[in-house]
Amino acid sequence: MNAQAGYTVGVQWGDCDPAQIVFYPNYFKWFDSASQTLLARILPPKRELLQRFQIIGFPIAEASARFLRPSTYGQSIVFDSTIESIQEKRFTVLHRGLRDGELLLEGREMRFAGRVHPDNPNRLQAIVLPDELVASFETVRTRR
Amino acid sequence: MNAQAGYTVGVQWGDCDPAQIVFYPNYFKWFDSASQTLLARILPPKRELLQRFQIIGFPIAEASARFLRPSTYGQSIVFDSTIESIQEKRFTVLHRGLRDGELLLEGREMRFAGRVHPDNPNRLQAIVLPDELVASFETVRTRR
Amino acid sequence: MNAQAGYTVGVQWGDCDPAQIVFYPNYFKWFDSASQTLLARILPPKRELLQRFQIIGFPIAEASARFLRPSTYGQSIVFDSTIESIQEKRFTVLHRGLRDGELLLEGREMRFAGRVHPDNPNRLQAIVLPDELVASFETVRTRR
Amino acid sequence: MNAQAGYTVGVQWGDCDPAQIVFYPNYFKWFDSASQTLLARILPPKRELLQRFQIIGFPIAEASARFLRPSTYGQSIVFDSTIESIQEKRFTVLHRGLRDGELLLEGREMRFAGRVHPDNPNRLQAIVLPDELVASFETVRTRR
Repeated sequence: MNAQAGYTVGVQWGDCDPAQIVFYPNYFKWFDSASQTLLARILPPKRELLQRFQIIGFPIAEASARFLRPSTYGQSIVFDSTIESIQEKRFTVLHRGLRDGELLLEGREMRFAGRVHPDNPNRLQAIVLPDELVASFETVRTRR
Repeated sequence: MNAQAGYTVGVQWGDCDPAQIVFYPNYFKWFDSASQTLLARILPPKRELLQRFQIIGFPIAEASARFLRPSTYGQSIVFDSTIESIQEKRFTVLHRGLRDGELLLEGREMRFAGRVHPDNPNRLQAIVLPDELVASFETVRTRR
Repeated sequence: MNAQAGYTVGVQWGDCDPAQIVFYPNYFKWFDSASQTLLARILPPKRELLQRFQIIGFPIAEASARFLRPSTYGQSIVFDSTIESIQEKRFTVLHRGLRDGELLLEGREMRFAGRVHPDNPNRLQAIVLPDELVASFETVRTRR
Repeated sequence: MNAQAGYTVGVQWGDCDPAQIVFYPNYFKWFDSASQTLLARILPPKRELLQRFQIIGFPIAEASARFLRPSTYGQSIVFDSTIESIQEKRFTVLHRGLRDGELLLEGREMRFAGRVHPDNPNRLQAIVLPDELVASFETVRTRR
Protein backbone atom coordinates (compact mmCIF):
# COMPACT_ATOMS: atom_id res chain seq x y z
CA MET A 1 0.00 0.00 0.00
CA ASN A 2 1.37 3.33 -0.97
CA ALA A 3 -1.41 5.93 -0.87
CA GLN A 4 0.19 7.38 2.20
CA ALA A 5 -0.81 10.90 2.88
CA GLY A 6 -4.16 11.04 1.16
CA TYR A 7 -4.52 14.78 1.68
CA THR A 8 -7.89 15.56 0.09
CA VAL A 9 -8.93 18.93 -1.27
CA GLY A 10 -12.45 19.98 -2.20
CA VAL A 11 -11.98 22.54 -4.96
CA GLN A 12 -13.75 25.75 -4.03
CA TRP A 13 -15.37 28.45 -6.19
CA GLY A 14 -12.67 30.89 -5.10
CA ASP A 15 -9.90 28.51 -6.17
CA CYS A 16 -11.02 28.88 -9.78
CA ASP A 17 -10.30 31.67 -12.22
CA PRO A 18 -12.36 33.27 -14.99
CA ALA A 19 -11.56 30.26 -17.21
CA GLN A 20 -13.62 28.23 -14.70
CA ILE A 21 -10.65 26.04 -13.74
CA VAL A 22 -8.30 25.96 -10.77
CA PHE A 23 -5.94 28.94 -10.77
CA TYR A 24 -2.69 27.00 -10.94
CA PRO A 25 -0.74 28.57 -8.02
CA ASN A 26 -3.36 26.97 -5.78
CA TYR A 27 -1.92 23.57 -6.66
CA PHE A 28 1.34 24.64 -5.03
CA LYS A 29 -0.58 25.69 -1.90
CA TRP A 30 -2.04 22.22 -1.82
CA PHE A 31 1.39 20.66 -2.37
CA ASP A 32 2.60 22.63 0.63
CA SER A 33 -0.33 21.48 2.76
CA ALA A 34 0.11 17.90 1.56
CA SER A 35 3.80 18.08 2.54
CA GLN A 36 2.98 19.55 5.93
CA THR A 37 0.41 16.80 6.43
CA LEU A 38 2.91 14.13 5.40
CA LEU A 39 5.67 15.54 7.60
CA ALA A 40 3.30 16.05 10.55
CA ARG A 41 2.38 12.38 10.29
CA ILE A 42 5.96 11.06 10.36
CA LEU A 43 7.89 13.68 12.33
CA PRO A 44 7.70 15.15 15.86
CA PRO A 45 5.43 18.23 16.24
CA LYS A 46 6.62 21.11 14.07
CA ARG A 47 7.22 23.60 16.88
CA GLU A 48 9.35 21.04 18.74
CA LEU A 49 11.29 20.27 15.57
CA LEU A 50 11.99 23.92 14.83
CA GLN A 51 13.43 24.39 18.31
CA ARG A 52 15.38 21.12 18.47
CA PHE A 53 17.24 21.65 15.19
CA GLN A 54 17.11 25.46 15.27
CA ILE A 55 15.47 25.51 11.88
CA ILE A 56 12.68 27.72 10.63
CA GLY A 57 11.02 24.86 8.78
CA PHE A 58 11.53 23.07 5.50
CA PRO A 59 11.84 25.81 2.91
CA ILE A 60 11.60 25.14 -0.79
CA ALA A 61 14.66 25.07 -3.03
CA GLU A 62 12.77 24.05 -6.15
CA ALA A 63 9.17 23.29 -7.05
CA SER A 64 7.61 22.04 -10.25
CA ALA A 65 4.38 20.65 -11.60
CA ARG A 66 2.95 19.05 -14.73
CA PHE A 67 -0.75 19.59 -15.27
CA LEU A 68 -2.58 16.87 -17.20
CA ARG A 69 -6.28 17.52 -16.52
CA PRO A 70 -7.94 20.70 -15.23
CA SER A 71 -10.24 20.65 -12.20
CA THR A 72 -13.09 22.90 -11.26
CA TYR A 73 -15.23 23.77 -8.23
CA GLY A 74 -17.30 20.97 -6.80
CA GLN A 75 -14.64 18.38 -7.63
CA SER A 76 -12.20 16.74 -5.23
CA ILE A 77 -8.53 15.97 -5.62
CA VAL A 78 -6.66 13.41 -3.53
CA PHE A 79 -2.98 14.10 -3.13
CA ASP A 80 -0.81 11.02 -2.72
CA SER A 81 2.47 12.38 -1.33
CA THR A 82 5.68 10.44 -0.87
CA ILE A 83 9.41 11.12 -0.53
CA GLU A 84 10.94 10.50 -3.93
CA SER A 85 14.58 11.12 -3.12
CA ILE A 86 16.82 12.01 -0.20
CA GLN A 87 20.18 13.70 -0.50
CA GLU A 88 22.62 14.97 2.11
CA LYS A 89 20.90 18.31 2.53
CA ARG A 90 17.80 18.00 0.39
CA PHE A 91 14.77 15.82 -0.09
CA THR A 92 12.10 15.74 -2.77
CA VAL A 93 8.42 15.25 -2.10
CA LEU A 94 6.42 13.84 -4.99
CA HIS A 95 2.74 14.80 -5.07
CA ARG A 96 0.36 12.94 -7.35
CA GLY A 97 -3.08 14.54 -7.66
CA LEU A 98 -5.78 11.97 -8.43
CA ARG A 99 -9.52 11.78 -8.95
CA ASP A 100 -11.24 8.44 -9.32
CA GLY A 101 -7.87 6.87 -9.91
CA GLU A 102 -7.02 9.21 -12.79
CA LEU A 103 -3.79 11.18 -12.57
CA LEU A 104 -4.63 14.88 -12.88
CA LEU A 105 -1.29 16.41 -12.11
CA GLU A 106 2.09 15.66 -10.65
CA GLY A 107 4.26 17.96 -8.57
CA ARG A 108 7.65 17.94 -6.92
CA GLU A 109 9.01 20.03 -4.08
CA MET A 110 12.72 19.92 -3.30
CA ARG A 111 13.03 21.03 0.29
CA PHE A 112 15.73 21.42 2.91
CA ALA A 113 15.90 21.88 6.65
CA GLY A 114 16.56 25.61 6.76
CA ARG A 115 18.38 27.68 9.34
CA VAL A 116 18.90 31.42 9.31
CA HIS A 117 22.41 31.94 7.93
CA PRO A 118 24.79 32.83 10.82
CA ASP A 119 26.57 35.48 8.75
CA ASN A 120 23.55 36.94 6.99
CA PRO A 121 20.05 37.08 8.47
CA ASN A 122 18.62 37.57 4.98
CA ARG A 123 19.78 34.17 3.82
CA LEU A 124 18.88 30.63 4.71
CA GLN A 125 21.30 27.77 5.16
CA ALA A 126 20.56 24.09 4.56
CA ILE A 127 21.68 21.82 7.38
CA VAL A 128 22.76 18.21 6.85
CA LEU A 129 19.54 16.23 7.28
CA PRO A 130 19.66 14.63 10.76
CA ASP A 131 19.59 10.80 10.74
CA GLU A 132 16.37 10.83 12.68
CA LEU A 133 14.63 12.79 9.95
CA VAL A 134 16.09 10.62 7.19
CA ALA A 135 14.84 7.50 8.96
CA SER A 136 11.36 8.99 9.08
CA PHE A 137 11.52 9.98 5.42
CA GLU A 138 12.44 6.38 4.51
CA THR A 139 9.09 5.18 5.85
CA VAL A 140 7.21 7.09 3.16
CA ARG A 141 9.42 6.56 0.11
CA THR A 142 7.81 6.57 -3.31
CA ARG A 143 7.15 3.05 -4.57
CA ARG A 144 6.90 2.29 -8.24
CA MET B 1 15.51 46.01 -27.23
CA ASN B 2 14.96 43.13 -24.89
CA ALA B 3 11.50 43.89 -23.63
CA GLN B 4 11.92 43.82 -19.91
CA ALA B 5 8.42 43.40 -18.61
CA GLY B 6 9.51 44.77 -15.26
CA TYR B 7 6.44 43.62 -13.37
CA THR B 8 7.19 44.82 -9.84
CA VAL B 9 5.78 43.33 -6.66
CA GLY B 10 5.89 44.89 -3.21
CA VAL B 11 5.95 41.94 -0.83
CA GLN B 12 3.10 42.26 1.65
CA TRP B 13 2.78 41.05 5.26
CA GLY B 14 0.10 38.61 4.16
CA ASP B 15 2.36 37.13 1.48
CA CYS B 16 4.67 35.84 4.21
CA ASP B 17 4.32 32.77 6.36
CA PRO B 18 5.23 32.06 10.00
CA ALA B 19 8.88 31.67 8.93
CA GLN B 20 8.72 35.40 8.05
CA ILE B 21 9.44 34.75 4.37
CA VAL B 22 7.28 34.68 1.25
CA PHE B 23 4.99 31.66 1.20
CA TYR B 24 6.30 30.11 -2.01
CA PRO B 25 3.03 29.54 -3.94
CA ASN B 26 2.78 33.33 -4.08
CA TYR B 27 5.74 33.36 -6.45
CA PHE B 28 3.64 31.42 -8.95
CA LYS B 29 0.83 33.96 -8.57
CA TRP B 30 3.38 36.63 -9.44
CA PHE B 31 4.65 34.57 -12.38
CA ASP B 32 1.07 34.41 -13.63
CA SER B 33 0.62 38.17 -13.24
CA ALA B 34 3.98 38.82 -14.87
CA SER B 35 2.95 36.62 -17.80
CA GLN B 36 -0.40 38.35 -18.10
CA THR B 37 1.39 41.69 -18.02
CA LEU B 38 3.87 40.56 -20.67
CA LEU B 39 1.15 39.12 -22.92
CA ALA B 40 -1.10 42.15 -22.44
CA ARG B 41 1.76 44.31 -23.63
CA ILE B 42 2.45 42.39 -26.83
CA LEU B 43 -0.94 40.89 -27.75
CA PRO B 44 -4.42 42.27 -28.54
CA PRO B 45 -6.75 42.70 -25.52
CA LYS B 46 -7.42 39.39 -23.77
CA ARG B 47 -11.19 39.33 -24.22
CA GLU B 48 -10.76 39.95 -27.96
CA LEU B 49 -8.14 37.21 -28.17
CA LEU B 50 -10.29 34.66 -26.36
CA GLN B 51 -13.12 35.29 -28.82
CA ARG B 52 -11.02 35.44 -31.96
CA PHE B 53 -9.24 32.13 -31.39
CA GLN B 54 -12.02 30.54 -29.33
CA ILE B 55 -9.61 29.89 -26.51
CA ILE B 56 -10.15 30.25 -22.79
CA GLY B 57 -6.71 31.74 -22.27
CA PHE B 58 -3.18 30.43 -21.95
CA PRO B 59 -3.38 27.60 -19.46
CA ILE B 60 -0.33 26.08 -17.85
CA ALA B 61 1.08 22.74 -18.93
CA GLU B 62 4.10 22.89 -16.64
CA ALA B 63 5.50 25.31 -14.09
CA SER B 64 8.71 25.30 -12.11
CA ALA B 65 10.86 27.53 -9.96
CA ARG B 66 14.27 27.61 -8.31
CA PHE B 67 14.50 29.74 -5.19
CA LEU B 68 17.90 31.24 -4.42
CA ARG B 69 17.20 33.97 -1.85
CA PRO B 70 14.14 34.42 0.38
CA SER B 71 12.22 37.68 0.47
CA THR B 72 10.14 39.23 3.20
CA TYR B 73 7.54 41.96 3.66
CA GLY B 74 8.68 45.49 2.92
CA GLN B 75 10.96 44.30 0.11
CA SER B 76 10.32 44.56 -3.62
CA ILE B 77 10.90 42.07 -6.39
CA VAL B 78 11.16 42.99 -10.06
CA PHE B 79 10.16 40.24 -12.46
CA ASP B 80 11.95 40.28 -15.79
CA SER B 81 9.81 38.07 -18.03
CA THR B 82 10.67 36.88 -21.52
CA ILE B 83 9.71 34.08 -23.91
CA GLU B 84 12.42 31.46 -23.66
CA SER B 85 11.19 28.99 -26.24
CA ILE B 86 8.37 28.54 -28.75
CA GLN B 87 7.13 25.22 -30.03
CA GLU B 88 4.26 24.29 -32.33
CA LYS B 89 1.69 24.24 -29.55
CA ARG B 90 3.60 25.48 -26.52
CA PHE B 91 5.68 28.36 -25.34
CA THR B 92 7.77 28.89 -22.24
CA VAL B 93 7.89 32.10 -20.28
CA LEU B 94 11.05 32.64 -18.23
CA HIS B 95 10.65 34.81 -15.11
CA ARG B 96 13.71 36.14 -13.34
CA GLY B 97 13.01 37.71 -9.95
CA LEU B 98 15.54 40.39 -9.06
CA ARG B 99 16.28 42.89 -6.31
CA ASP B 100 19.04 45.43 -6.71
CA GLY B 101 20.35 43.40 -9.61
CA GLU B 102 20.63 40.21 -7.56
CA LEU B 103 18.85 37.12 -8.87
CA LEU B 104 16.47 35.89 -6.16
CA LEU B 105 14.60 33.23 -8.05
CA GLU B 106 13.94 31.91 -11.50
CA GLY B 107 10.71 30.41 -12.79
CA ARG B 108 9.35 28.90 -15.96
CA GLU B 109 5.81 28.49 -17.17
CA MET B 110 5.09 26.29 -20.19
CA ARG B 111 1.79 27.48 -21.56
CA PHE B 112 -0.47 26.76 -24.49
CA ALA B 113 -3.42 28.44 -26.18
CA GLY B 114 -6.22 26.33 -24.70
CA ARG B 115 -9.60 25.50 -26.15
CA VAL B 116 -12.30 23.42 -24.48
CA HIS B 117 -11.95 19.93 -25.96
CA PRO B 118 -14.73 19.36 -28.55
CA ASP B 119 -15.33 15.79 -27.35
CA ASN B 120 -14.97 16.38 -23.63
CA PRO B 121 -15.86 19.64 -21.87
CA ASN B 122 -13.72 18.58 -18.91
CA ARG B 123 -10.53 18.64 -20.95
CA LEU B 124 -8.53 21.34 -22.64
CA GLN B 125 -6.96 21.12 -26.07
CA ALA B 126 -3.86 22.99 -27.23
CA ILE B 127 -4.24 24.70 -30.58
CA VAL B 128 -1.35 25.27 -32.99
CA LEU B 129 -0.03 28.68 -32.03
CA PRO B 130 -1.30 31.17 -34.65
CA ASP B 131 1.46 32.92 -36.62
CA GLU B 132 0.30 36.27 -35.32
CA LEU B 133 0.93 35.17 -31.73
CA VAL B 134 4.29 33.62 -32.57
CA ALA B 135 5.39 36.86 -34.21
CA SER B 136 4.48 38.75 -31.07
CA PHE B 137 6.30 36.24 -28.86
CA GLU B 138 9.44 36.70 -30.99
CA THR B 139 9.61 40.35 -29.96
CA VAL B 140 10.22 39.41 -26.33
CA ARG B 141 12.55 36.46 -26.68
CA THR B 142 15.02 35.78 -23.89
CA ARG B 143 18.49 37.10 -24.69
CA ARG B 144 21.60 35.69 -23.06
CA MET C 1 -29.77 20.56 16.60
CA ASN C 2 -28.46 23.41 14.57
CA ALA C 3 -24.88 22.64 13.54
CA GLN C 4 -25.99 22.52 9.94
CA ALA C 5 -23.22 23.02 7.50
CA GLY C 6 -20.28 21.89 9.57
CA TYR C 7 -17.74 23.01 7.02
CA THR C 8 -14.42 22.13 8.65
CA VAL C 9 -11.10 23.77 7.91
CA GLY C 10 -7.69 22.50 8.92
CA VAL C 11 -5.59 25.63 9.30
CA GLN C 12 -2.47 25.33 7.12
CA TRP C 13 1.01 26.79 7.54
CA GLY C 14 0.42 28.99 4.50
CA ASP C 15 -2.79 30.39 5.98
CA CYS C 16 -0.75 32.02 8.75
CA ASP C 17 1.24 35.23 8.66
CA PRO C 18 4.51 36.27 10.31
CA ALA C 19 2.58 36.80 13.58
CA GLN C 20 2.00 33.01 13.50
CA ILE C 21 -1.79 33.40 13.33
CA VAL C 22 -4.31 33.10 10.52
CA PHE C 23 -4.02 35.98 8.05
CA TYR C 24 -7.52 37.34 8.46
CA PRO C 25 -8.67 37.55 4.81
CA ASN C 26 -8.50 33.75 4.81
CA TYR C 27 -11.50 33.72 7.15
CA PHE C 28 -13.53 35.34 4.39
CA LYS C 29 -12.36 32.65 1.96
CA TRP C 30 -13.64 30.09 4.41
CA PHE C 31 -16.92 31.99 4.81
CA ASP C 32 -17.30 31.83 1.06
CA SER C 33 -16.59 28.10 0.98
CA ALA C 34 -18.92 27.52 3.93
CA SER C 35 -21.66 29.41 2.08
CA GLN C 36 -21.06 27.47 -1.12
CA THR C 37 -21.20 24.25 0.90
CA LEU C 38 -24.41 25.33 2.60
CA LEU C 39 -26.04 26.43 -0.66
CA ALA C 40 -24.86 23.30 -2.50
CA ARG C 41 -26.56 21.23 0.17
CA ILE C 42 -29.95 22.94 -0.07
CA LEU C 43 -30.11 24.16 -3.67
CA PRO C 44 -29.97 22.54 -7.14
CA PRO C 45 -26.47 22.22 -8.66
CA LYS C 46 -24.82 25.61 -9.14
CA ARG C 47 -24.36 25.41 -12.92
CA GLU C 48 -28.06 24.51 -13.32
CA LEU C 49 -29.05 27.37 -11.05
CA LEU C 50 -26.95 29.90 -12.90
CA GLN C 51 -28.62 28.94 -16.17
CA ARG C 52 -32.16 28.67 -14.85
CA PHE C 53 -32.23 32.12 -13.24
CA GLN C 54 -29.66 33.69 -15.59
CA ILE C 55 -27.54 34.71 -12.65
CA ILE C 56 -23.78 34.61 -12.28
CA GLY C 57 -24.00 33.37 -8.70
CA PHE C 58 -24.61 34.90 -5.30
CA PRO C 59 -22.31 37.90 -5.14
CA ILE C 60 -21.58 39.71 -1.91
CA ALA C 61 -23.15 43.04 -1.05
CA GLU C 62 -21.64 43.25 2.42
CA ALA C 63 -19.36 41.11 4.55
CA SER C 64 -18.19 41.46 8.12
CA ALA C 65 -16.47 39.55 10.87
CA ARG C 66 -15.65 39.80 14.55
CA PHE C 67 -12.54 37.96 15.66
CA LEU C 68 -12.50 36.72 19.24
CA ARG C 69 -9.67 34.16 19.36
CA PRO C 70 -6.78 33.71 16.94
CA SER C 71 -6.05 30.34 15.36
CA THR C 72 -2.82 28.90 14.07
CA TYR C 73 -1.58 26.04 11.87
CA GLY C 74 -2.36 22.55 13.08
CA GLN C 75 -5.69 23.66 14.55
CA SER C 76 -9.13 23.06 13.10
CA ILE C 77 -12.12 25.36 12.83
CA VAL C 78 -15.69 24.17 12.33
CA PHE C 79 -17.95 26.66 10.59
CA ASP C 80 -21.61 26.47 11.56
CA SER C 81 -23.40 28.36 8.79
CA THR C 82 -27.06 29.33 8.74
CA ILE C 83 -29.33 31.87 7.04
CA GLU C 84 -29.88 34.66 9.52
CA SER C 85 -32.25 36.85 7.53
CA ILE C 86 -34.05 36.92 4.19
CA GLN C 87 -35.21 40.06 2.46
CA GLU C 88 -36.82 40.63 -0.94
CA LYS C 89 -33.51 40.74 -2.80
CA ARG C 90 -30.96 39.86 -0.16
CA PHE C 91 -30.12 37.20 2.37
CA THR C 92 -27.56 37.05 5.14
CA VAL C 93 -25.49 34.02 5.96
CA LEU C 94 -24.21 33.83 9.53
CA HIS C 95 -20.97 31.90 10.03
CA ARG C 96 -19.88 30.89 13.51
CA GLY C 97 -16.33 29.54 13.74
CA LEU C 98 -15.90 27.10 16.59
CA ARG C 99 -13.24 24.87 18.13
CA ASP C 100 -14.13 22.47 20.91
CA GLY C 101 -17.38 24.35 21.37
CA GLU C 102 -15.63 27.70 21.87
CA LEU C 103 -16.69 30.56 19.60
CA LEU C 104 -13.58 31.86 17.82
CA LEU C 105 -15.14 34.25 15.38
CA GLU C 106 -18.40 35.25 13.82
CA GLY C 107 -19.00 36.44 10.28
CA ARG C 108 -21.84 37.63 8.12
CA GLU C 109 -22.21 37.74 4.38
CA MET C 110 -25.10 39.64 2.83
CA ARG C 111 -25.58 38.15 -0.60
CA PHE C 112 -27.94 38.51 -3.53
CA ALA C 113 -28.77 36.54 -6.65
CA GLY C 114 -26.83 38.58 -9.20
CA ARG C 115 -27.47 39.10 -12.88
CA VAL C 116 -25.35 41.16 -15.27
CA HIS C 117 -27.10 44.53 -15.53
CA PRO C 118 -28.99 44.74 -18.86
CA ASP C 119 -27.92 48.34 -19.42
CA ASN C 120 -24.37 48.08 -18.20
CA PRO C 121 -22.23 44.92 -18.41
CA ASN C 122 -19.94 46.33 -15.72
CA ARG C 123 -22.65 46.30 -13.11
CA LEU C 124 -24.60 43.58 -11.35
CA GLN C 125 -28.30 43.62 -10.63
CA ALA C 126 -30.03 41.85 -7.74
CA ILE C 127 -33.09 39.86 -8.77
CA VAL C 128 -36.07 39.27 -6.47
CA LEU C 129 -35.24 36.03 -4.70
CA PRO C 130 -37.33 33.28 -6.34
CA ASP C 131 -39.78 31.54 -3.97
CA GLU C 132 -38.03 28.24 -4.55
CA LEU C 133 -34.77 29.65 -3.21
CA VAL C 134 -36.47 31.32 -0.25
CA ALA C 135 -38.13 28.03 0.68
CA SER C 136 -34.74 26.33 0.67
CA PHE C 137 -33.20 29.12 2.75
CA GLU C 138 -35.95 28.67 5.35
CA THR C 139 -34.76 25.12 6.01
CA VAL C 140 -31.46 26.37 7.37
CA ARG C 141 -32.51 29.44 9.34
CA THR C 142 -30.43 30.48 12.32
CA ARG C 143 -31.93 29.23 15.60
CA ARG C 144 -31.22 30.95 18.86
CA MET D 1 -3.43 67.72 3.54
CA ASN D 2 -5.50 64.63 4.00
CA ALA D 3 -2.86 61.95 3.66
CA GLN D 4 -4.25 59.89 0.81
CA ALA D 5 -2.44 56.63 1.14
CA GLY D 6 -3.19 55.90 -2.48
CA TYR D 7 -2.36 52.22 -2.36
CA THR D 8 -3.05 51.10 -5.94
CA VAL D 9 -3.91 47.58 -7.00
CA GLY D 10 -3.93 46.26 -10.56
CA VAL D 11 -6.57 43.54 -10.54
CA GLN D 12 -5.05 40.29 -11.81
CA TRP D 13 -6.61 37.36 -13.66
CA GLY D 14 -6.05 35.16 -10.62
CA ASP D 15 -7.86 37.63 -8.36
CA CYS D 16 -11.08 36.91 -10.24
CA ASP D 17 -13.45 33.98 -9.87
CA PRO D 18 -15.54 32.06 -12.40
CA ALA D 19 -18.08 34.93 -12.35
CA GLN D 20 -15.27 37.03 -13.93
CA ILE D 21 -15.18 39.46 -11.00
CA VAL D 22 -12.84 39.90 -8.05
CA PHE D 23 -13.22 37.08 -5.52
CA TYR D 24 -14.25 39.19 -2.56
CA PRO D 25 -11.80 37.97 0.12
CA ASN D 26 -9.10 39.58 -2.01
CA TYR D 27 -10.50 42.98 -1.08
CA PHE D 28 -9.62 42.25 2.53
CA LYS D 29 -6.08 41.31 1.48
CA TRP D 30 -5.86 44.70 -0.19
CA PHE D 31 -7.31 46.40 2.90
CA ASP D 32 -4.55 44.76 4.91
CA SER D 33 -1.88 45.89 2.46
CA ALA D 34 -3.37 49.38 2.35
CA SER D 35 -3.26 49.51 6.16
CA GLN D 36 0.30 48.25 6.26
CA THR D 37 1.23 50.87 3.68
CA LEU D 38 -0.53 53.61 5.65
CA LEU D 39 1.04 52.55 8.95
CA ALA D 40 4.48 52.13 7.37
CA ARG D 41 4.23 55.69 6.14
CA ILE D 42 3.38 57.24 9.53
CA LEU D 43 5.01 54.90 12.05
CA PRO D 44 8.56 53.70 12.78
CA PRO D 45 9.64 50.53 10.89
CA LYS D 46 7.44 47.56 11.79
CA ARG D 47 10.18 45.33 13.21
CA GLU D 48 11.33 48.17 15.50
CA LEU D 49 7.76 48.79 16.59
CA LEU D 50 7.10 45.14 17.39
CA GLN D 51 10.17 45.07 19.63
CA ARG D 52 9.65 48.43 21.30
CA PHE D 53 6.07 47.77 22.41
CA GLN D 54 6.42 43.99 22.59
CA ILE D 55 3.54 43.56 20.23
CA ILE D 56 3.10 41.09 17.38
CA GLY D 57 1.52 43.69 15.14
CA PHE D 58 -1.90 45.25 14.72
CA PRO D 59 -4.30 42.33 14.63
CA ILE D 60 -7.88 42.68 13.51
CA ALA D 61 -10.78 42.77 15.96
CA GLU D 62 -13.41 43.43 13.33
CA ALA D 63 -13.51 43.89 9.57
CA SER D 64 -16.32 44.78 7.23
CA ALA D 65 -16.95 45.88 3.66
CA ARG D 66 -19.74 47.13 1.44
CA PHE D 67 -19.38 46.35 -2.23
CA LEU D 68 -20.98 48.78 -4.66
CA ARG D 69 -19.42 47.97 -8.04
CA PRO D 70 -17.59 44.82 -9.11
CA SER D 71 -14.12 44.96 -10.65
CA THR D 72 -12.40 42.61 -13.04
CA TYR D 73 -8.90 41.85 -14.34
CA GLY D 74 -7.20 44.62 -16.24
CA GLN D 75 -8.79 47.31 -14.07
CA SER D 76 -7.13 49.27 -11.27
CA ILE D 77 -8.41 50.23 -7.84
CA VAL D 78 -6.98 53.03 -5.75
CA PHE D 79 -7.42 52.61 -2.01
CA ASP D 80 -7.74 55.83 -0.05
CA SER D 81 -7.06 54.79 3.55
CA THR D 82 -7.49 56.95 6.63
CA ILE D 83 -7.99 56.54 10.37
CA GLU D 84 -11.70 56.98 11.03
CA SER D 85 -11.73 56.62 14.81
CA ILE D 86 -9.35 56.12 17.71
CA GLN D 87 -10.33 54.60 21.04
CA GLU D 88 -8.28 53.71 24.10
CA LYS D 89 -7.27 50.30 22.77
CA ARG D 90 -8.64 50.26 19.25
CA PHE D 91 -8.54 52.20 16.05
CA THR D 92 -10.51 51.91 12.83
CA VAL D 93 -9.03 52.23 9.38
CA LEU D 94 -11.45 53.29 6.66
CA HIS D 95 -10.61 52.12 3.14
CA ARG D 96 -12.36 53.63 0.17
CA GLY D 97 -11.78 51.82 -3.13
CA LEU D 98 -12.03 54.14 -6.12
CA ARG D 99 -11.66 54.08 -9.88
CA ASP D 100 -11.82 57.27 -11.90
CA GLY D 101 -13.29 58.99 -8.87
CA GLU D 102 -16.14 56.50 -8.54
CA LEU D 103 -16.55 54.74 -5.20
CA LEU D 104 -16.44 50.97 -5.81
CA LEU D 105 -16.38 49.72 -2.26
CA GLU D 106 -15.80 50.78 1.29
CA GLY D 107 -14.16 48.78 4.06
CA ARG D 108 -13.35 49.13 7.71
CA GLU D 109 -10.79 47.37 9.85
CA MET D 110 -10.90 47.75 13.63
CA ARG D 111 -7.42 46.95 14.83
CA PHE D 112 -5.50 46.92 18.08
CA ALA D 113 -1.88 46.78 19.15
CA GLY D 114 -1.68 43.11 20.10
CA ARG D 115 0.51 41.38 22.63
CA VAL D 116 0.61 37.67 23.42
CA HIS D 117 -1.52 37.26 26.54
CA PRO D 118 0.77 36.75 29.59
CA ASP D 119 -1.50 34.04 31.03
CA ASN D 120 -2.39 32.28 27.81
CA PRO D 121 -0.11 32.07 24.77
CA ASN D 122 -3.12 31.20 22.62
CA ARG D 123 -4.75 34.55 23.21
CA LEU D 124 -3.91 38.10 22.26
CA GLN D 125 -4.22 41.12 24.50
CA ALA D 126 -4.87 44.68 23.35
CA ILE D 127 -2.53 47.24 24.93
CA VAL D 128 -3.52 50.86 25.57
CA LEU D 129 -2.48 52.66 22.40
CA PRO D 130 0.77 54.52 23.20
CA ASP D 131 0.53 58.33 22.83
CA GLU D 132 3.18 58.26 20.15
CA LEU D 133 1.05 56.00 17.98
CA VAL D 134 -2.10 58.03 18.61
CA ALA D 135 -0.29 61.21 17.56
CA SER D 136 0.73 59.52 14.32
CA PHE D 137 -2.79 58.27 13.70
CA GLU D 138 -4.12 61.81 14.12
CA THR D 139 -2.11 62.92 11.09
CA VAL D 140 -4.16 60.69 8.79
CA ARG D 141 -7.66 61.12 10.19
CA THR D 142 -10.62 60.74 7.84
CA ARG D 143 -11.96 64.09 6.69
CA ARG D 144 -15.50 64.52 5.46
